Amino acid sequence: MSRFVNGARSFSTMASSLLADATAASQSVRQPSSFQVFRDVPSIRGLRRQLLQKDRSVGFVPTMGALHEGHLSLIRQAARENTDIFVSIFVNPTQFGVTEDLSSYPRTWDTDVEKLEKLNEELERLGENSASAGRITAIFAPTSKVMYPGLPPTSEVDGYGSFVTITPLSTKLEGGSRPVFFRGVATVCMKLFNITTPDRVYFGQKDVQQTVVIKRMVEDFHVGTELRIIETTREHDGLALSSRNVYLGDRRRTVGLTIYKALKAAEEVYLGGRNSRADILGAARKVTDSVLSAQQSLSPSERALYEVDYVSLADPDTLDELEVVDSAKGAVLSTAFKMAPLEESKPGEDCGLGDGKVPVRLIDNLIFGPRA
Amino acid sequence: MSRFVNGARSFSTMASSLLADATAASQSVRQPSSFQVFRDVPSIRGLRRQLLQKDRSVGFVPTMGALHEGHLSLIRQAARENTDIFVSIFVNPTQFGVTEDLSSYPRTWDTDVEKLEKLNEELERLGENSASAGRITAIFAPTSKVMYPGLPPTSEVDGYGSFVTITPLSTKLEGGSRPVFFRGVATVCMKLFNITTPDRVYFGQKDVQQTVVIKRMVEDFHVGTELRIIETTREHDGLALSSRNVYLGDRRRTVGLTIYKALKAAEEVYLGGRNSRADILGAARKVTDSVLSAQQSLSPSERALYEVDYVSLADPDTLDELEVVDSAKGAVLSTAFKMAPLEESKPGEDCGLGDGKVPVRLIDNLIFGPRA
Repeated sequence: MSRFVNGARSFSTMASSLLADATAASQSVRQPSSFQVFRDVPSIRGLRRQLLQKDRSVGFVPTMGALHEGHLSLIRQAARENTDIFVSIFVNPTQFGVTEDLSSYPRTWDTDVEKLEKLNEELERLGENSASAGRITAIFAPTSKVMYPGLPPTSEVDGYGSFVTITPLSTKLEGGSRPVFFRGVATVCMKLFNITTPDRVYFGQKDVQQTVVIKRMVEDFHVGTELRIIETTREHDGLALSSRNVYLGDRRRTVGLTIYKALKAAEEVYLGGRNSRADILGAARKVTDSVLSAQQSLSPSERALYEVDYVSLADPDTLDELEVVDSAKGAVLSTAFKMAPLEESKPGEDCGLGDGKVPVRLIDNLIFGPRA
Repeated sequence: MSRFVNGARSFSTMASSLLADATAASQSVRQPSSFQVFRDVPSIRGLRRQLLQKDRSVGFVPTMGALHEGHLSLIRQAARENTDIFVSIFVNPTQFGVTEDLSSYPRTWDTDVEKLEKLNEELERLGENSASAGRITAIFAPTSKVMYPGLPPTSEVDGYGSFVTITPLSTKLEGGSRPVFFRGVATVCMKLFNITTPDRVYFGQKDVQQTVVIKRMVEDFHVGTELRIIETTREHDGLALSSRNVYLGDRRRTVGLTIYKALKAAEEVYLGGRNSRADILGAARKVTDSVLSAQQSLSPSERALYEVDYVSLADPDTLDELEVVDSAKGAVLSTAFKMAPLEESKPGEDCGLGDGKVPVRLIDNLIFGPRA
């Protein structure tokens, strides 16, 4: 699942407001009004069975919490296509590497629940005009012991456990620097799919490699669900929504938009009829190089620097790098930028959460569809 | 799934008698009368959906064909507990190692179908006296491409693909000499379970490590099915049924029974109240040593020699070797014997299929239940 970083809240809020199962949760202080919260497998399975008997359809949106508009857009889409929506909130330990800090991952239970309640009100209003609009029926928020009932979840590449591995897909791009990430994602998704047995599952295109890995998993393991990939939600100027954006501040946000401009420049070349890697990535590089050199010529209190981690032009199914795009098939253009911390801030400047000192890794992508 | 070796038949029989789907198969020459044969996923899913709507229950028996009484006993048990039985026949390439010969694995389609038809007649007769007796409704016999739609199935430990791995369980005992075996088994079972979504799945206790691996997989991945492990079917004298037994011949069969006698001697020690590894395995070793030395004293035309591969006294969930059995939990006692080829045969002697020249590996086990 996507790792969205947001303002940090303690996980203890969640632990205290949620008890062992939905019945117990109904006695807790912070009880959502329009959906049930499930903490274990048998209880949500029971609901799923009831819905099946009533011939209702379930759309499933897996998250790690820290919900933002991107997640909500997945749920809105699920509401158009299903009567019932299950949202899981589970910070999955096995997708964090040994050098990545699982404990500092934001837990924002109360605000997440609030957002989902508001969204259900919105869906309710929409539903008055349309019989087909679904609602959030269940939140699945299991403990780590429920999700990993056997051995303790490992972050070691050679660690013991029960895993789904999808190779070589998982080793490419984002997997290059994060060797256990997609093993963790595939494993937890297989478990969640088995538990919720959804008619449809929803993932955001923003994490494009994740969508490709899950697509392969669904196909290879004949998972009986329909995978729905939903377009990236963007700000008015095109910046892809990410909880990490709050760390950017004004200056790095403006410069960070380069990631989108570079992708669009490359897309224009493809849509204009050219298929070669050199032409397409050349257009992207021209944008990233010129912005960077303009920034470098500024003083430390004016500039924001970045490093391009990768720009990839790859096959949509295998993520193999392409020398030439087959325009009958299309391609995935994806990139990762590392926005450096600000060197110097100006008095009164909005430097974002963490005062501009937090390096921010941005990712974005565009899908090149088949072209006539 | 179990690898049962039987008289070899060509796989081409199967290829010719089965077409792309059940509809097509109904036009073929060798069409079973009492169940449908499915070759692809959508068609059997369609049947599964119908059964679900009619509130019928499905018991699933995965096999690699070459059916014998052991398989039939699984199906009989499934018939007691479900209205409908699905049997899969698929020789799974990913559980064969690079040194193991997948192509020589027996394909016995016609005799398998015959046995299943006869069994359905038997179940029909039983059903006249009991409303609950189920029937074989579907045979699922997919192609390798259907089961492995992505990359070609690999037998390499480091080969690419989509796999379920269960460690360290898969590396123990049988996994020691067959490093890809349980990866292949877990992977194909996850696929088959996703396709058939059975209420219950049936495995024989004979392949005890397989049952432990699948149990862990079902638990860890929250597979929504009940795992049923059915007692080993034995000859009148206790020899565990195996298609490999046809290779033994009279002499090696008599001596081969030592595997069962050794297990029973060890069991007697445990049931008598002793829990130490030394005591329990000592009793087994006494049997295997004394039989072997008696054989060694005979002439080459009279004797049958063997090697004990392992005798394991292990925890039922982890298969970790035990120094002392916790009698509240019990243990798994398992062993593998290698029956050597006969050195000399006597005129007119029944030396089994292959004239006594084929080495035969026998495995067997007993479950030590909790003891008061």
